[in-house]
Parts: sequence; C-alpha cells; structure tokens
Amino acid sequence: MKFHTEYLTFNTRKHRTYVHITPQVEAILNKSDIKDGMVLISAMHITAGVYVNDDENGLIQDIDAWLEKLAPSGNPYHHHKTGEDNGDSHLKAILIHHQVIVPVTAGKLDFGPWQRIFYAEFDGQREKRVIVKVMGE
Amino acid sequence: MKFHTEYLTFNTRKHRTYVHITPQVEAILNKSDIKDGMVLISAMHITAGVYVNDDENGLIQDIDAWLEKLAPSGNPYHHHKTGEDNGDSHLKAILIHHQVIVPVTAGKLDFGPWQRIFYAEFDGQREKRVIVKVMGE
Amino acid sequence: MKFHTEYLTFNTRKHRTYVHITPQVEAILNKSDIKDGMVLISAMHITAGVYVNDDENGLIQDIDAWLEKLAPSGNPYHHHKTGEDNGDSHLKAILIHHQVIVPVTAGKLDFGPWQRIFYAEFDGQREKRVIVKVMGE
Repeated sequence: MKFHTEYLTFNTRKHRTYVHITPQVEAILNKSDIKDGMVLISAMHITAGVYVNDDENGLIQDIDAWLEKLAPSGNPYHHHKTGEDNGDSHLKAILIHHQVIVPVTAGKLDFGPWQRIFYAEFDGQREKRVIVKVMGE
Repeated sequence: MKFHTEYLTFNTRKHRTYVHITPQVEAILNKSDIKDGMVLISAMHITAGVYVNDDENGLIQDIDAWLEKLAPSGNPYHHHKTGEDNGDSHLKAILIHHQVIVPVTAGKLDFGPWQRIFYAEFDGQREKRVIVKVMGE
Repeated sequence: MKFHTEYLTFNTRKHRTYVHITPQVEAILNKSDIKDGMVLISAMHITAGVYVNDDENGLIQDIDAWLEKLAPSGNPYHHHKTGEDNGDSHLKAILIHHQVIVPVTAGKLDFGPWQRIFYAEFDGQREKRVIVKVMGE
C-alpha cells in the first residue's frame, strides 16, 4: 500500500471562480506511481468546494448562477454577526460538496468521457489549499 | 491490499429514473472476496448520480419532484447555446452528488437498516456507466 | 494495511440538531494507530447527514434555516402516505450528504484551519448510528 500526498494552492483574482484542475491531479497521480486505487481531492477550507463535471463555459456560468440562486449572497445571515460577510460562501460549499474521490485503474484516472475535476472558490482573493492524496498500489 | 473493479451499464427507458442497485453492488463485493474495506460507486457521466437512501416509491417521487423544483428543466441555460438541452441534468447530478463510498465490514456492506444504493439517471435513453471499485483485504 | 471500525450512537433531544464530532473522530483515529490514510465517517440512517464546516453558532443556525427553506417540513410529500411524516428529513440528508472522507497524514486529521466534522440529525429523539472506519498504515 502506497500513499502520496500533495497540496495545491490557489489565490484567485475573483471572489467566486471555478478552476479546472484535472491536469494537476493527473500529474500528481503520475508521480505517485500508483496503478490501482483512488485519489481523494478535498478542499481544506469551508468556503470552497471540489466537484466533477463538464469543462464547458456556458455550464460553468449556469452552475454559478444556480448556486447564487439557491444560496444567495447579501442575505442577513446570522454568521455575519461575527463580522464575517461570507455566509453564502459556506452554503454554496456545502451544496456543491467539498471533496471527490476519483478511482484509479491501470495508472489512469478512471473517468467517463466528459468528467473533469474543478476547484470551486466561493471566497477567494487569498491563499487557499486543496489536499490531493493518492492511495493504492 | 486487493482491488476489484467492475462497471455497470444502464440504458434507461425514461429520460429521468432511479434504479435500485444494491443487489448488483453486493454481488460484486462477494466476487471480490474482500472482508474489510470499502466500495466506491461512482457515476462515469456528468448527468447522472449515485446516492444512498430508502427504497420507497413515494419517496422516490418526492426526490424527483424536489430535484425538478431546485434544478428545473426548460430554463434558458447558457449550456444550451452549445446545442445541448440538458442543463438541468447537470445541476441535478451536482445536487444529488455523483458518488458514494460504502464501508465493508465482515464481508458485508456495513449499512444501517434502511440504506440502499441508487443510480439516478437525469439524461437517459442511451448507454451510461457506473464504476464499482472494491478496495480492502 | 490496517482497518479500525467504530460506531458512534446518537439520541438527540431535538428533532433537528447539529453535533460537533471532531473530538470523537480524533480519539478513534488515535486508537487505530494509523499514520497515513483516511477516515470514512458515514451516517447509517437515511434521515441524517455528516458534513465538514465551521463550528460557529450563527452559521449552524443559517445552515438549519437554509435546509428548511430548500427542503421544507410540512409539505404533503408522497412518502407520508406510508404513515411517515419525515419526507423533509430525507431531502435534507440528501442535500447535505450522508458522509465525508477525512485524509490522515502523520497520524492527524489533515484539515485546514477551520474544518470540523458535524453529525446532522434531521429526525432525532431515537437511537441512530454513524460508522467511523479508519483505513491506512
């Protein structure tokens, strides 16, 4: 059983943005030399998510508008009494989920044709991290 | 450490439907001969999900109506400018999530009394796959 | 490869409540003597969830109000024709998701600064269980 752990760091220019990270995850998998197993990709912050879906600009706009509709910014959240103003960022992260597990078979991410990994930033413009842990043999 | 990987294929008659797959996952676990570990069950498409909940018809109707309310079909999604018409299918898949991990203990799925695994199809009537990867000893 | 499995039991005083369980998970990890790997924390019931977010009272109130808005109690759910009255509890559990995987590195939960694990009860006042399975070396 082998383990290989790396951390990705993001510091996005926008408050909310979606970053395609499949190439970085594949590079880490290649370094790990693991042929069968899985990769955990998990945001280390509570206002960011990781999800798997299509790399298509229109869709990304739709996802962003949908998250804003279901978990709106600007609401008078209780959390804001602490001086924070990012209550919606927490709810968006819960909705999209903060992690995925990607299966590894024959040394590759075992994905369907359109699956890609994204880092979803909901409160950016500062350093944030994602853990990538490959486990297998 | 052992790994055992199989793929389930679905070609549903309806555009949206929910398929109970616990028996297939149990059969794969039995073939793997793994007694302790876990099973990853993950949709390989970006318009389908996998979830764990009760196998009860009324509830499945409620889940479908709820997903349609929170991620409606027929909206003018940006994604449709590509010629696609399944923007809602992507959002429904993100909402329900595309994967689960089921723990394995003493050679069985270590589930509570009512937990069952479902494949959630949001854009069917064509061949789609789910990976089932058992990992453990 | 080592596996260490324990079960947490909850019997909450309130119908809906959110219980911080990071200390219990850390105690189980310490007993496992696993230094690299991961912990699966998964609700064994279909009306409860497990999530990772901030331990802040206002935020927990916001999460509860948000779940009630997106998956309201008191609706005439089809599921209620069985005599049940907890249709909303199932939908809330699906929305927040019933499980998380926490990475383990150097014998610790490999978390960012504010990440904490919560058990989310949506139909309490009776005994319910969560499985905690540590896997690694």
